[in-house]
Amino acid sequence: MEGVHRTHFATECTKELVGKRVTLNGWVHKRRDLGGLIFLDLRDRSGRVQVVFNPEISPEAVRIAEQVRSEYVLAITGKVVEREPGTVNPNMKTGEIEIQGEQVHVFNAAKTPPFMIQDDLDVDESIRLKYRYLDLRRSKMQKTMLIRHRAMQIVRQFLDQHGFVEMETPMLTRSTPEGARDYLVPSRVHEGSFYALPQSPQLFKQLFMVAGMERYFQFARCFRDEDLRADRQPEFTQIDIEASFLPTETFLSMMEEMVAKLFKETIGVEVPRPFPRLTYQEAMERYGSDKPDLRFGMELVDLSDILRDSSFKVFSGAIASGGQVKAITVKGCADWSRKEVDNWGQVAQAFGAKGLAWMALKEGGLKGSVAKFLSEEEVAAIQKATGAETGDMLFFVADNKKVVADVLGELRVRLAKALNLIDPDRYAFAWVTEFPLLEYSEEDNRYYAMHHPFTMPMEEDVPLLETDPGRVRAKAYDMVLNGFEIGGGSQRIYQRDIQEKMFQALGLSMEDAKEKFGFLLEAFEYGAPPHGGIAFGFDRIVMLLAGRTNLRECIAFPKTTSGTCLLTEAPAPVDEQQLNDLHIQIATQK
Amino acid sequence: MEGVHRTHFATECTKELVGKRVTLNGWVHKRRDLGGLIFLDLRDRSGRVQVVFNPEISPEAVRIAEQVRSEYVLAITGKVVEREPGTVNPNMKTGEIEIQGEQVHVFNAAKTPPFMIQDDLDVDESIRLKYRYLDLRRSKMQKTMLIRHRAMQIVRQFLDQHGFVEMETPMLTRSTPEGARDYLVPSRVHEGSFYALPQSPQLFKQLFMVAGMERYFQFARCFRDEDLRADRQPEFTQIDIEASFLPTETFLSMMEEMVAKLFKETIGVEVPRPFPRLTYQEAMERYGSDKPDLRFGMELVDLSDILRDSSFKVFSGAIASGGQVKAITVKGCADWSRKEVDNWGQVAQAFGAKGLAWMALKEGGLKGSVAKFLSEEEVAAIQKATGAETGDMLFFVADNKKVVADVLGELRVRLAKALNLIDPDRYAFAWVTEFPLLEYSEEDNRYYAMHHPFTMPMEEDVPLLETDPGRVRAKAYDMVLNGFEIGGGSQRIYQRDIQEKMFQALGLSMEDAKEKFGFLLEAFEYGAPPHGGIAFGFDRIVMLLAGRTNLRECIAFPKTTSGTCLLTEAPAPVDEQQLNDLHIQIATQK
Repeated sequence: MEGVHRTHFATECTKELVGKRVTLNGWVHKRRDLGGLIFLDLRDRSGRVQVVFNPEISPEAVRIAEQVRSEYVLAITGKVVEREPGTVNPNMKTGEIEIQGEQVHVFNAAKTPPFMIQDDLDVDESIRLKYRYLDLRRSKMQKTMLIRHRAMQIVRQFLDQHGFVEMETPMLTRSTPEGARDYLVPSRVHEGSFYALPQSPQLFKQLFMVAGMERYFQFARCFRDEDLRADRQPEFTQIDIEASFLPTETFLSMMEEMVAKLFKETIGVEVPRPFPRLTYQEAMERYGSDKPDLRFGMELVDLSDILRDSSFKVFSGAIASGGQVKAITVKGCADWSRKEVDNWGQVAQAFGAKGLAWMALKEGGLKGSVAKFLSEEEVAAIQKATGAETGDMLFFVADNKKVVADVLGELRVRLAKALNLIDPDRYAFAWVTEFPLLEYSEEDNRYYAMHHPFTMPMEEDVPLLETDPGRVRAKAYDMVLNGFEIGGGSQRIYQRDIQEKMFQALGLSMEDAKEKFGFLLEAFEYGAPPHGGIAFGFDRIVMLLAGRTNLRECIAFPKTTSGTCLLTEAPAPVDEQQLNDLHIQIATQK
Repeated sequence: MEGVHRTHFATECTKELVGKRVTLNGWVHKRRDLGGLIFLDLRDRSGRVQVVFNPEISPEAVRIAEQVRSEYVLAITGKVVEREPGTVNPNMKTGEIEIQGEQVHVFNAAKTPPFMIQDDLDVDESIRLKYRYLDLRRSKMQKTMLIRHRAMQIVRQFLDQHGFVEMETPMLTRSTPEGARDYLVPSRVHEGSFYALPQSPQLFKQLFMVAGMERYFQFARCFRDEDLRADRQPEFTQIDIEASFLPTETFLSMMEEMVAKLFKETIGVEVPRPFPRLTYQEAMERYGSDKPDLRFGMELVDLSDILRDSSFKVFSGAIASGGQVKAITVKGCADWSRKEVDNWGQVAQAFGAKGLAWMALKEGGLKGSVAKFLSEEEVAAIQKATGAETGDMLFFVADNKKVVADVLGELRVRLAKALNLIDPDRYAFAWVTEFPLLEYSEEDNRYYAMHHPFTMPMEEDVPLLETDPGRVRAKAYDMVLNGFEIGGGSQRIYQRDIQEKMFQALGLSMEDAKEKFGFLLEAFEYGAPPHGGIAFGFDRIVMLLAGRTNLRECIAFPKTTSGTCLLTEAPAPVDEQQLNDLHIQIATQK
């Protein structure tokens, strides 16, 4: 194989190398024969370069080049020459030169791939996943993987420089009593016992703080056996971070700096700091979402005060029974057809509204389902509150607080997308803070921790734990970007008295709590420092960095929504002997 | 909490800060009261500093300091002052100063820990593992974890700079047909099917090469459900690396550079390059091991030619039946007592020898079990071959090749340790190359791949695949250090014709092979580049860097040899409902 070793990558072959002899290694991207010459585009990880074989230069090389087809793996030696003026390709980095092929070595042949190795691909995703190794050859996928790699390095370097220690936590661990469904791993040695794959390293990272590691991070693989959606995977990667003794403000500002650096150094985006902050309450009120997309306005406006005494009972009735009436203004859409409005009404219903009331401020006067029910004063007050002008459309939802937020929050985002109101080049970061500490479950008639039972309540709300737990706000914070939650964290409880109050609010005795969280509570008795942290959804961050819309595009070997790997066909049946070794058997259907 | 936030780490408080007021956060390492003063050693991740509380400076601080005990978590504010000349502690980085305590804030109290937070610890390992969060507070453990962290960063940065892309592979994957026992994960969605946790990302990393990623790495968590020894863990971390188109020499030299950089930048050790190389055959012949400890000599010497016709039948008989007689020289130990020699004989027997023959070259003449059976010429020839001199002891083993190597290889290492022949500050790296491609199993009457079925045979040995498979050498290489294999890899087969010959040698038809390795073989048909790689045992490398002797010391939360986590008590029984969800049940004992 002497002489077949790469001297240059494809895209290193530019005008500076003209006259030099190079050896390239790579794949045949395409071949075409023209006027007795053979043209090959040779592709490697760096990109592509054109090679031309001329019988007058090397009949032997032509003879071999004639045999090769797309995706053959070659070594090519030849001289870098300038292209004829008319054949320069300004779209290619190497478009001013070509390689005059002198020798070809075929490392390997290739069958015709099931789809072309090109970016604009109209092929079923299942085929792409089955042949992922071919899909990953496409430059778009390579670019995404390289962004992922670069992102990992930037984050690691930042955290290292800020004194965070990368530490690994077990994958074979213990099933957690609260939370999502666990993936279980039967033990061969301990008959009838199971490991669980971690949903997150939460308990371990808090133990690192008790252990005095002070600043920890990990790119942690996490597992949740939940029903999957397009943006969920059974296994996912989170950037897991925890710190002791750090004031929250210092910590949040550090995280902003890290994320800004990440966006700057991967995709060249300047992220202004500090990030704006919204309380949970404000986010829900103005955007109907705890992860608002702040790239556009179209805020929700509360009209309850205006419509409390309205003669339109749909509105006043909802308010009287403790609900709200809120509206969003769709600029310049007063002329929408009935059909168009109905379509949005169906969306509203799909997200829980009984109906979508509307009013179009047309040149000629008001139109719409509620126009005739509102008084002139009410209309004037609504226009003032919403800022709606002639030519605008108003959508109203009257219902309880949750439905109003869900429906208008969803409509807001969908309308903005439909109307192209979103600048795809904008990256609107924010912190959402002061989340409720607890959520009430009507079903179980008890409170559950919204985040987890070690989340610190805000100092001024601690007394409420005993009197009105639902109103207690947590020292929790989510980082949101363009409508996605990309990270979430909190300060943790480290004082025993607050922890006990928390458990009481959750209806757990200290004994019950020890039963459930024994080793962490015990650890806290040996000198737990004040600490807190965050976990970023790394796959999602990569998705946003790479401008993709699906998590599967950002993971090298993802699973389908049914949890299948189409390449390896995992999961699969196993040998009886394997099950015997593990002391389990397939349960007969019940 | 104003005024309690750390301004400095403990060990930042040196003479340069004298006169400055600082706030420290950390744990009470110890407290002692002396002449009305209270002395606290405050510990944080950086180390320790002494704080003194004087009622004349702050009676309030003294009042609080009186309450605190070991492992309390404090914020302390005070002035940095020089110590009295007689009280300087030259063993402490902060030994020239102390903090004059003015304010104390108790973040948290602590119960008396079950063992002292100090390096020289005489406490059962099971207690340390149960309270791992306290064990990790010890400076030796912190140092090990920091070395582990630093090692990860150095390796990553090196590989990144050399064009390797960090890519993640699935943890939920498919059970592999050959290899160690898999950990299985029952699927909830696909009834009766199972994922397997990866034993290594071998197949995926080769797919990355087919995908044109060209250079890949990952710190990969791997799982093997084997019976555990002191230096095995059910889950372990390997530095997994693969590259396309790289000449083997270039690759090995890159890996040497990486490891040298790692040892230099973590523990300041200069590693000479290039590493010496030994073929597998040479390593076995000279050291009786394929991972020889090269920090000392005591090589095995083959005496078969000398003793072939010996009248001592134990020797000549072994040689006649195809075996060997080999010896090692134990310098200066001719005076060992019979008891001492017998002890070594028992070691030899434990590793498979029928007995250990010995001969002491005493001042007064020969002694030992074989002395009287050997002729003068034989003794002279043996002395010449081994270089043994008066005062030395010779140990002989006569048996088949494998037993001779096993026993003398083991004795060599144990003797060197017992005799203190090993310089603990030496790091003797080497490559062991040309491993046999195949191993014959008498039991199954067939060959097995020694590494895996995609390991490339040496070109000149390819014809032997059909005629004498046991003699085929592989393009495989192990990196060894001080008697440990720290990394192993190979060039891979990428040509279909060689792959078919390999399968034939393994007694597999192409159809069987597709059944077992289907998706990888299919991938190879679409343009596989020449590629190869290596995997380093990261836990073991950390062990050697940190000067530890047990892998458990190098993993934050390790498992015991029975696969138990003593902290979380994993594995553990789970709810019936969880098993129902997964369509499995505990098998009744058979």
